Amino acid sequence: MRVGVIGGGQLARMMVPAAVALGVEIQVLGEGPESSARLAMTAAGEPGDLDAVLAFARGVDVVTFDHEHVPQPVLRALVDAGVAVRPGPDALVHAQDKLVLRRRLAALGLPQPVWAEVADARALGAFLAETGGRAVVKTPRGGYDGHGVRIVDDAHGADDWFGDGPLLAEELVLFRRELAQLVARRPAGEVVQWPLVETVQGGGVCREVFAPAPRLAATAARVARETAHRIAVELDVTGVLAVELFETEDDRVLVNELAMRPHNSGHWTIDGAVTSQFEQHLRAVLDLPLGDASARAPHAVMVNLLGGPADGDLDSRVPRAMADQPAAKLHLYGKAPRPGRKIGHVTAVGDDLDDLVFAARSAVALLQD
Amino acid sequence: MRVGVIGGGQLARMMVPAAVALGVEIQVLGEGPESSARLAMTAAGEPGDLDAVLAFARGVDVVTFDHEHVPQPVLRALVDAGVAVRPGPDALVHAQDKLVLRRRLAALGLPQPVWAEVADARALGAFLAETGGRAVVKTPRGGYDGHGVRIVDDAHGADDWFGDGPLLAEELVLFRRELAQLVARRPAGEVVQWPLVETVQGGGVCREVFAPAPRLAATAARVARETAHRIAVELDVTGVLAVELFETEDDRVLVNELAMRPHNSGHWTIDGAVTSQFEQHLRAVLDLPLGDASARAPHAVMVNLLGGPADGDLDSRVPRAMADQPAAKLHLYGKAPRPGRKIGHVTAVGDDLDDLVFAARSAVALLQD
Repeated sequence: MRVGVIGGGQLARMMVPAAVALGVEIQVLGEGPESSARLAMTAAGEPGDLDAVLAFARGVDVVTFDHEHVPQPVLRALVDAGVAVRPGPDALVHAQDKLVLRRRLAALGLPQPVWAEVADARALGAFLAETGGRAVVKTPRGGYDGHGVRIVDDAHGADDWFGDGPLLAEELVLFRRELAQLVARRPAGEVVQWPLVETVQGGGVCREVFAPAPRLAATAARVARETAHRIAVELDVTGVLAVELFETEDDRVLVNELAMRPHNSGHWTIDGAVTSQFEQHLRAVLDLPLGDASARAPHAVMVNLLGGPADGDLDSRVPRAMADQPAAKLHLYGKAPRPGRKIGHVTAVGDDLDDLVFAARSAVALLQD
Repeated sequence: MRVGVIGGGQLARMMVPAAVALGVEIQVLGEGPESSARLAMTAAGEPGDLDAVLAFARGVDVVTFDHEHVPQPVLRALVDAGVAVRPGPDALVHAQDKLVLRRRLAALGLPQPVWAEVADARALGAFLAETGGRAVVKTPRGGYDGHGVRIVDDAHGADDWFGDGPLLAEELVLFRRELAQLVARRPAGEVVQWPLVETVQGGGVCREVFAPAPRLAATAARVARETAHRIAVELDVTGVLAVELFETEDDRVLVNELAMRPHNSGHWTIDGAVTSQFEQHLRAVLDLPLGDASARAPHAVMVNLLGGPADGDLDSRVPRAMADQPAAKLHLYGKAPRPGRKIGHVTAVGDDLDDLVFAARSAVALLQD
């Protein structure tokens, strides 16, 4: 059982412990010696370099991903060459192109914000007129962690982004909070879902996750579950799928976007679920039976470590965080601290939500300070 | 933070996930490309080859072990060269030499079987006369998993073992069951203990572990805890220490032997404790604050996978085991199946001991079949 992961970031890194436990041989096509997943790197190369990707793929049984940046032509060439690519290009395009996703969700009748494809300032102006004068404009491709997303209140507010094709315009959703439904699906069809979580974003980046989402209405949980199941099946997703959702002030649940790989909203599962998203992803892409996705305890709280200490010396902060919070689970990604960069996370698992929030935040604060 | 592990077996392998989470760089001096811990192997060499071991040690901050087979002269040469060796040679000798251990425990007044150092058949005969005509004879060094241990009822029953120095003779302890107390200690002095467990042996090899030990008398738990704490401190152990114990039919707790490294009796901690023995071992040898060793759930059951399927094709059994027991945690060591060989284990964690025993045994049976 050999899995090849394209991309050497922290998601590939966190697949390594799961691979070690399952007896799966994991190989990573990474960026270079600084890659977070360098321990399992067997080749260096760019995801757009077909020759490099093909050579890498020939040494494994199935290819999967650390990120969504492998171009469609490369994905299709892999499939044409007989490589098992999971998720496949027809599924993955929905996580690569926000316009493709919006069209597909509309065709499926699944809940999403009011949206339009806008080709120029005039079209954007017309959309603004429909949505109360304000809208969110997104580049269909290449956005992440808040990049390629802008709130506009003027038809010319996205003029600098036109030129590479149409943009996606969406209503500015008045949401109470953001949720995420994590699901896994294997080629044989089995689908398993973890509990719905609340994600707290700041500056376009995930900051904290509460699992399960506190004070959750039964309807919201049901809609999230059914929506994620339908997306996984209809889009023929294989592996882990994260469905990012808005919970609106009027109690609707709308699909924001998708990730087809392990996702920040599921890092809590390493310590807080019977089967982590990383183990499940390996099982799913290998078409093995999926594991129990139940929570191990009533609550889990995950807090991201963003940036790290100003002097860049993270190692020197580790002892204080460990001494202060002996039950907190530290996850450090082996990445150089840099302002805003995700370089680790801390999870606390147990019975009392307030205690867990305090523990996880305290550990992160001591790692940052 | 760079840890070097001498020996590439499954204990080194299972340190890898913990190292990945903590951001610790792990390097393994393994036996060769078939080593269980090959993913983290940076050098190949024998533990008795001082030059190889020294060269390996120079690339890391601290050296620790997958096994007890590094000869004392090599350990001492490392220390003399300024290498941080944890546990150090003066501690480790108690896990290498059963006579040294017996003498030390006697000096400390800690509970152990009646024993004698026997240099010849006459001395063994005298010991047999004292202990009802039957005794256990052990070679002081080199025994493991039942090798180097023999029950004798005749003064000449160990004649073939004399010649390399005296043997250890022990009373044949009438024990109700075997227990193991796992403890970790860091150089700064901090000591943390996991719950006492029951270990079930067969053919000299660990078969199953129940955590915590069911139906445990408070006195036995206290004696085990105090004994393990005292051994860790008095022997200046750093890292994880497993104290293997007999619970006698008359309710005494006696020390059988020691392992100064993560131990089979602690594999359940990967899934069943807040901090696994592998993470704790890394923390301890790096002199980092120790983690919470509490159980995550009321019960954990670990069953070893010994030998594997007769046709050697373990991979083909994995799907059935996963499908049958979706909550069981599989741990496969990447070793070729061979009769009696430890090639993996399965852990089940939860509330109902009987259910967990069934789940773990079922998964192992399906992997074996």
